[in-house]
Amino acid sequence: MSWLRVIGLGPGTVLQRTAEAEAALAQATDLVGYAPYVARVAAGPDVVRHASDNRVELDRARHALDLAAAGRRVAVVSGGDAGVFGMASAVFEAVETGPAAWAALDIAVIPGVSAVLAAAARLGAPLGGDFCVISLSDNLKPWDVVVARLRLAAQAGFVIALYNARSNARPWQLGVAFAELRTVLTGDVPVAFARAVGRPDERMEITDLAHADPEHADMSTLVLIGCAMTRRIARTGAQDWLYTERRVNP
Amino acid sequence: MSWLRVIGLGPGTVLQRTAEAEAALAQATDLVGYAPYVARVAAGPDVVRHASDNRVELDRARHALDLAAAGRRVAVVSGGDAGVFGMASAVFEAVETGPAAWAALDIAVIPGVSAVLAAAARLGAPLGGDFCVISLSDNLKPWDVVVARLRLAAQAGFVIALYNARSNARPWQLGVAFAELRTVLTGDVPVAFARAVGRPDERMEITDLAHADPEHADMSTLVLIGCAMTRRIARTGAQDWLYTERRVNP
Repeated sequence: MSWLRVIGLGPGTVLQRTAEAEAALAQATDLVGYAPYVARVAAGPDVVRHASDNRVELDRARHALDLAAAGRRVAVVSGGDAGVFGMASAVFEAVETGPAAWAALDIAVIPGVSAVLAAAARLGAPLGGDFCVISLSDNLKPWDVVVARLRLAAQAGFVIALYNARSNARPWQLGVAFAELRTVLTGDVPVAFARAVGRPDERMEITDLAHADPEHADMSTLVLIGCAMTRRIARTGAQDWLYTERRVNP
Repeated sequence: MSWLRVIGLGPGTVLQRTAEAEAALAQATDLVGYAPYVARVAAGPDVVRHASDNRVELDRARHALDLAAAGRRVAVVSGGDAGVFGMASAVFEAVETGPAAWAALDIAVIPGVSAVLAAAARLGAPLGGDFCVISLSDNLKPWDVVVARLRLAAQAGFVIALYNARSNARPWQLGVAFAELRTVLTGDVPVAFARAVGRPDERMEITDLAHADPEHADMSTLVLIGCAMTRRIARTGAQDWLYTERRVNP
């Protein structure tokens, strides 16, 4: 029985992976994904690893569907949750634009703990109210759209989680994003840089919008911008807590 | 060694729970939470269950902190992820407003698979682009704020996930929300009702904004509203797939 499973591996540690994800991985004959994620999966010597680089999601999805159509049990893996800027959308785009037989394959998506949830948990409860999740990459959408979304999200009072906040190829977007947010939000709104949550090189920084320095983010950093209801609890000898009050004052 | 862990149990099935959550639950002396969530946890006869009703989050959080301060190992449990309209925010509000000793307790939040991620996975990949998560309850925020957030989110082009979409005490809000969204979005935008994902009484419905009937939601239903880039893949003999294209056309 062949199938394709799109699997969220969760954040850095396997302890944050679900039993359902582990069970599917244990049955897979083929692992498909961006190389660092494929490398995270422990598997027997008979399992075929198809690791690729980060820019070829649609080709990778088609390759996975080809393998499933040929009778393999294929695990397409993403970090965090595959539905949040992971492989799930690319798989269904490939299904819609591919051979009709692909739509009849046994496909399922297995959710995972997304990076935004893991980062929030390490910080306390910054997502305590309404929130939004935005990719700052302009590879697949115009930069004007990104800026408009940031402005509307701040006007709405959402806590804002930024994926793909910064990379070597996109060094300037985060600074522009902070500048745009400063036109709507006050400088005392908390900002957190959550780097590599759950991995040995994890690093957390809590600051505020007035002082947020885009140079402190790299390609492993999720950036969280609070709202007017986000509060910081000072602690001695430990990282401060951030949380957003459930109540919204008018 | 006493502690307090705020634990996301994941959606309906234990298979969607993380190993980290299971390990903490296995060490807890006390379980605190809304009764249906406490009931979901398998535990030995020595574990004390403190189940309460749904409207007393802050009292429940204070009770949990009291127990931890008295030397117990306390698991505060929420369905899905505790940071997304779960107990995490109430715990930190109780810490900030409570005795100074509470801030020195060993507290950690253990993330889980939130309902929005589980619902999205069952539907395909509707969160493929930027998205937001909004509670439709006006218990803790003015209804005007909810309506303004819906309008801004639609203008931004976010896929919108609605928690607390409907209850017996709040029967009319979802219809008003759909009406508001229809002033910004076209009627062909996909809408999904995802009820009790991962539980035996799971029920999924895919429709569009023109035809979305608020009567089809109940207090276990998460409602997802797509955006202009959300597509529906028709299937025969199985639920259609929904996915949002990663690319955004200007």
